[in-house]
Amino acid sequence: MFRGVMESAKEFKKVVDTVSTLLDEICFEVDEEGIKASAMDPSHVALVSLEIPRLAFEEYEADSHEIGIDLEAFKKVMNRAKSKDKLILELDEEKNKLNIIFENTGKRKFSLALLDLSASSVKVPDIEYPNVIMIKGDAFKEALKDADLFSDYVILKADEDKFVVHAKGDLNDFNAEFEKDSSAIISLEVKEETKSAFNLDYLMDMVKGVSSGDIIKIYLGNDMPVKLEYSLAGVNLTFLLAPRIEG
Amino acid sequence: MFRGVMESAKEFKKVVDTVSTLLDEICFEVDEEGIKASAMDPSHVALVSLEIPRLAFEEYEADSHEIGIDLEAFKKVMNRAKSKDKLILELDEEKNKLNIIFENTGKRKFSLALLDLSASSVKVPDIEYPNVIMIKGDAFKEALKDADLFSDYVILKADEDKFVVHAKGDLNDFNAEFEKDSSAIISLEVKEETKSAFNLDYLMDMVKGVSSGDIIKIYLGNDMPVKLEYSLAGVNLTFLLAPRIEG
Amino acid sequence: MFRGVMESAKEFKKVVDTVSTLLDEICFEVDEEGIKASAMDPSHVALVSLEIPRLAFEEYEADSHEIGIDLEAFKKVMNRAKSKDKLILELDEEKNKLNIIFENTGKRKFSLALLDLSASSVKVPDIEYPNVIMIKGDAFKEALKDADLFSDYVILKADEDKFVVHAKGDLNDFNAEFEKDSSAIISLEVKEETKSAFNLDYLMDMVKGVSSGDIIKIYLGNDMPVKLEYSLAGVNLTFLLAPRIEG
Repeated sequence: MFRGVMESAKEFKKVVDTVSTLLDEICFEVDEEGIKASAMDPSHVALVSLEIPRLAFEEYEADSHEIGIDLEAFKKVMNRAKSKDKLILELDEEKNKLNIIFENTGKRKFSLALLDLSASSVKVPDIEYPNVIMIKGDAFKEALKDADLFSDYVILKADEDKFVVHAKGDLNDFNAEFEKDSSAIISLEVKEETKSAFNLDYLMDMVKGVSSGDIIKIYLGNDMPVKLEYSLAGVNLTFLLAPRIEG
Repeated sequence: MFRGVMESAKEFKKVVDTVSTLLDEICFEVDEEGIKASAMDPSHVALVSLEIPRLAFEEYEADSHEIGIDLEAFKKVMNRAKSKDKLILELDEEKNKLNIIFENTGKRKFSLALLDLSASSVKVPDIEYPNVIMIKGDAFKEALKDADLFSDYVILKADEDKFVVHAKGDLNDFNAEFEKDSSAIISLEVKEETKSAFNLDYLMDMVKGVSSGDIIKIYLGNDMPVKLEYSLAGVNLTFLLAPRIEG
Repeated sequence: MFRGVMESAKEFKKVVDTVSTLLDEICFEVDEEGIKASAMDPSHVALVSLEIPRLAFEEYEADSHEIGIDLEAFKKVMNRAKSKDKLILELDEEKNKLNIIFENTGKRKFSLALLDLSASSVKVPDIEYPNVIMIKGDAFKEALKDADLFSDYVILKADEDKFVVHAKGDLNDFNAEFEKDSSAIISLEVKEETKSAFNLDYLMDMVKGVSSGDIIKIYLGNDMPVKLEYSLAGVNLTFLLAPRIEG
């Protein structure tokens, strides 16, 4: 059996929104500890991983299950969440469906057919990074959107004093500098100067659900994938994106 | 002559919005008691009827008239209403136009050419229904939108204990249950268990203008058209929709 | 050198929004007094002129320069301004770019390549007008939008007692009357009754940035271009539009 109750459907909606822009379907590995999933995006450029510890739920009860879900349908359902709706996720083993229930003054139950997926063997690789930047989520997100005006990729740079988001178009260019003591920077640990280019669409998709108050941990190195980590509604999200090969 | 003044153009806008999604044109029958109109939608599946008693107006003066109006144009004009605009409707018999005047700090006068329509002979049939449900308008409206995720028709069910909105897609399905004592239900009078399917687009159009605080009266029976009744800005609206024939 | 600091990027955004709907590129003539520019729109129907006195800036320093800018790119950048961003405009003579910097908690720098334009020889002609109307910007703007429902041109009329915005469609028509003592009218000086037709799209573009609180000065005469003047964020804007020749 599996049943989990969350306080805010609206908050969890952001998680599904973000994951569904990168993936078409997902296999949730459910057990008594909580829920896990990880997968490569269809073009195998980005890795998405999420972890929902049982503590993220108000109530939680589960045996071991693999629950395959179409993320387009999941997103459509979550978009119907209202501000004060409570969220109940519940496996109907008999009908082979996942029930998504919004509870407020009434009770609205959506039942999604399960997909026959196996849990992915892809896990977040255990890389040691020379540089770790903790930055306010909206500052980073806005800088990516700024960069998007002029280019389809972005260069992330870090040295001892600052973290820089840079974009270079044919004619125009953009630069956001976050000094070590800027109010957007929580911490800046740089052992090695780095400068790497990344696809901008993927990065923007990865931070889609981030809003003001959220904090993103960025792991950077030379010729390494960038790793982003943050939490939404008690869900730990991790993203990896391979660097762009410069011509 | 005909002249009617309403306090809030913005409120009346909702009436025109709702009616204009179902009908292309309408013939208002005006007399000293107020305004009436009823018509079938172009595909003859739904019946729309409205009544504006003279009390819905701040000021009202009228002889007997038939005023044929293009609802697309009427809607475009009403969409220009601002929150504090007063609404004046006024027949210009000489020019054969209906003046729609928004009065606030200034005066904006739109004049719509009259159409040569005769009052419809269609009236709301006097059917006795076994079941009557009074429900909060937004709860019903949201359930219809939920249902729309998975299907283009909806099954309305009622028994002694609850009113149910159900939709069944190829893979996924949706269920909203309103228990008799749920806060969304004002009253539930059920003499006969019913279950009928209806076209979802029509139902959603019929409740388009409904907002939180409005209450809808739903008349249900087996193999009978559903009847919806509610009031907007002092205007009584009635809709009938034939049941969907199940294959 | 040229460097100017403005308190509110968001306010200046409205100026760029308005000008960029009418022009594709612009040559700012910068000197120690401030900034000037004027140009005809590409179809040579409308004249746009702007003046930014040095007092519109918090800080200002400049030699004589001509700064040619692509307005599409300028607009895209200004659309990224947030409510509390300060705006810094700064010429980078070495790189031949105009830096547009948003300063808030962080610093986001956009660099636009300069275009090789010469200052326009077009200036606002010094016409004496018989009639001058000062009107609340939003009242005029809304009347134009109303008129747009039924026609693609608008007739502006003025006599001793009132200013009228009129539109005539094939079937329907619109009339906004602003009486001399209406709260929308600041002043109405009419020496000669006038009635002229103007292209509605151009007029709506010209008042695009206007919001409630702004006041527009309208200069009207028979067989004369209409002249509109107003200020946004300390920037003086002037527009001329040739009358429509009636068939």
